[in-house]
Order: sequence, then structure tokens, then C-alpha cells
Amino acid sequence: MSAPDEKSRAPIEFWFDFASGYAYFAALEIEALAERNGRTVCWRPFTLGAAFKVTGAQGLSRTPLKREYARHDWQRLARLNRVPFNLPADHPKVGLPGIRAFYALDRKDAQAAGRLAKHMIVGYFQHGLDTDDPHAIAGLASTLGHDPDFVLAGIGDPEVKAIARRHGDEAVARGVFGSPWIFVDGEPFWGNDRLPMVERWLAEGPW
Amino acid sequence: MSAPDEKSRAPIEFWFDFASGYAYFAALEIEALAERNGRTVCWRPFTLGAAFKVTGAQGLSRTPLKREYARHDWQRLARLNRVPFNLPADHPKVGLPGIRAFYALDRKDAQAAGRLAKHMIVGYFQHGLDTDDPHAIAGLASTLGHDPDFVLAGIGDPEVKAIARRHGDEAVARGVFGSPWIFVDGEPFWGNDRLPMVERWLAEGPW
Repeated sequence: MSAPDEKSRAPIEFWFDFASGYAYFAALEIEALAERNGRTVCWRPFTLGAAFKVTGAQGLSRTPLKREYARHDWQRLARLNRVPFNLPADHPKVGLPGIRAFYALDRKDAQAAGRLAKHMIVGYFQHGLDTDDPHAIAGLASTLGHDPDFVLAGIGDPEVKAIARRHGDEAVARGVFGSPWIFVDGEPFWGNDRLPMVERWLAEGPW
Repeated sequence: MSAPDEKSRAPIEFWFDFASGYAYFAALEIEALAERNGRTVCWRPFTLGAAFKVTGAQGLSRTPLKREYARHDWQRLARLNRVPFNLPADHPKVGLPGIRAFYALDRKDAQAAGRLAKHMIVGYFQHGLDTDDPHAIAGLASTLGHDPDFVLAGIGDPEVKAIARRHGDEAVARGVFGSPWIFVDGEPFWGNDRLPMVERWLAEGPW
């Protein structure tokens, strides 16, 4: 691998919905993948709902046939990757408080916000974290050293809500319709299945 | 790899729509993948339309955002795999004559039918083969040594049409909603992206 130029040091953008099973598996791997290739990860939680209005699609877990396949596939992936996977009984949650907590923290510390994002999606798929409950989010954030009152205030802050909404709009404007979604220097990759291709793109450059 | 038992010698089922770009890439690789693992391929063309009625989805090429991503992604895959890819101007075609020609031939020679199927999807994505035109299909079949009149008669045969329809119904009944779709001893795998996982399943057995 040749020495990266300035452009190729840009963070990998990792766009995902907190209720996306495939994003969970990718979230467990994306940081190590980035690090192997001299990059960092810019976490970008959003809700797929806005994209579904444009594509006319619904979430996997609300689509007949796809829902059953996805549940089978997630368990198969969990066994293959030897990681826990426990679908919450009331899956899928929209998770707006989770998204807003992220952007509240992201304004002052992007790295800490990324760490919180990873803990939120892992919490959802491993321990049933309620991403719709501001107090559950604030409780998790406090275990990571954040002031729970700051997080609760952020979740209710109209300015933070507007930032979160703008990110959802940005996703659709940039063609994002699924989760996880990765941009490498602007190049789009959809799906956990594409991590090997993302890594190849990083290592070998555009082809 | 241990010696395969009787069950594990069963052919891999390869279900696909003739207008599926991802199926084209998989069709170029599936036979070699099967052979490396002591298997053969059972080709199963069908039209995704029936599944779309159940899932409420539309084809990639009729879905905003997904359509643009898929076109970009197909060109990127073609460059990566160093294979031609030329999307027909009037893509996507339903390709019922192609499906019926396949099942007409499949009744007497499954291997020859598989060869025709591969030539049809390759013809569509490399040379603009019109899979909706019985004469174009019969012409292609004749280059493979088949009597074009047999093929034309098969395309128009109500019994063959019923067989083709039954296979579409079977696909939906077995949970197939996308293309390509691979069954390995009943285990379902959706998508060209999953070929590495299919190969791992074949080599290491169920996990």
C-alpha cells in the first residue's frame, strides 16, 4: 500500500439506523477495518424512514419474506462471527432519542459521540437497550462518563433535533437508502456484505 | 474438507431473474464455485414479479435511489471482475419467453437448459439479447445446437407456461424475494454478495 495522500486520510463515513441488524454486525468491525487502512470512522446515525418515503420501500422487519429471511440470516451471521445477537421483542424501534443524543454529543466531541453510538447499537442488539427511551440512553451515556442531564437536555433540544433531521435529509440527498451505508472519499457502499469491497477500495484505491 | 455424504452432493439451486444485474455477475461464477465443492448447479430462472406482489417491493431498476446506486455498483463490479457489462437501453425486460424456453428444454435435458440459461443472461447483459423476443431466444438456442422450432414451440406451449408459472410460485412459497437466490441443501442465500458465504457453507458445512 502506498503512503496515503491527504484526501485518502479522510474518515470513513458510517451511516446507519439504530434498528438495523446488518448495521450492528458492521458496527462491530468498521473501526478495525478503518484502522487497518489508516482511517478513522465518522459515525452518522439516521433514521431510514426518510429514505423509505423516497424509495417506497419499508424496513426489512416490516416486509413479508424479507423479514423472515433477515431474522434467519442475522442468527447465521451471529454464529459465523461468534457474536451475540438478541432481537428486542418490540423490534424495530425508530430510536430518535438515540440519534439526538448522538448529535448532542457530536457537537462537542465527535470521538465520544462515536463511542456512544457504537454502545447504543450494540446495547440494542445485545441487551435490549430501549433507543426510544431518553432515560435509558442517558443511563448508558453516564456509564461512558457523560453527564446524563446533558444528554437528556440534548435529546429535548430543538436545535439538536434540527441537526438530526438535517443529517437524515443529507443522507437521502446523497442517495442513501439503506443501512449500513459507507462512504469512502464519497464512494458509496451499501450493506454489511460490502465490507470486504470497502477494504479493497481503501487498500487498492479506486478501480 | 471431508468426503461429501449423499446429501451434500445435491446440486446448488440457482434462482434468478433474467433482468437481474447481480444475477449476471453470480451466473459468471456459480458453476466454478459449485465445481470446486463437488457440486453441480440447478438453474432456476423465474420472474421476480410474483415475489414483489408479496413483499410490496419493486425491482431495483424501478426504485428511486436504488436504481442509481445499482447502476453505479454494476459498473464498479464489472471493472473489479474485469467482465463486460452493458445495460440494455430498455432494461428491465420481464423475459418470459426466455424463462419458457429454459423450461421447455429443461424437461428433456437439464444440463443443456442450464447452458442456455447462462447464455441468455450473459447475452442480455453483454450483447443486448432481447429476452422478450421468442425469435431472438430461438436464434441463440440454435447457436448452441438446439432446433429453433422446438424452442419456439416450447415458448408457446401452455404446458411449459404452466411449468414456468409453477416455478415462480414455488420460489415465493420457499421465501425467495430477490435475485440471485441460492439454496444449498435447503439453506437460503440472497445476493451476489453472498457467494463467499455460500462457498464457506459448502466447504465447512452448516454452522
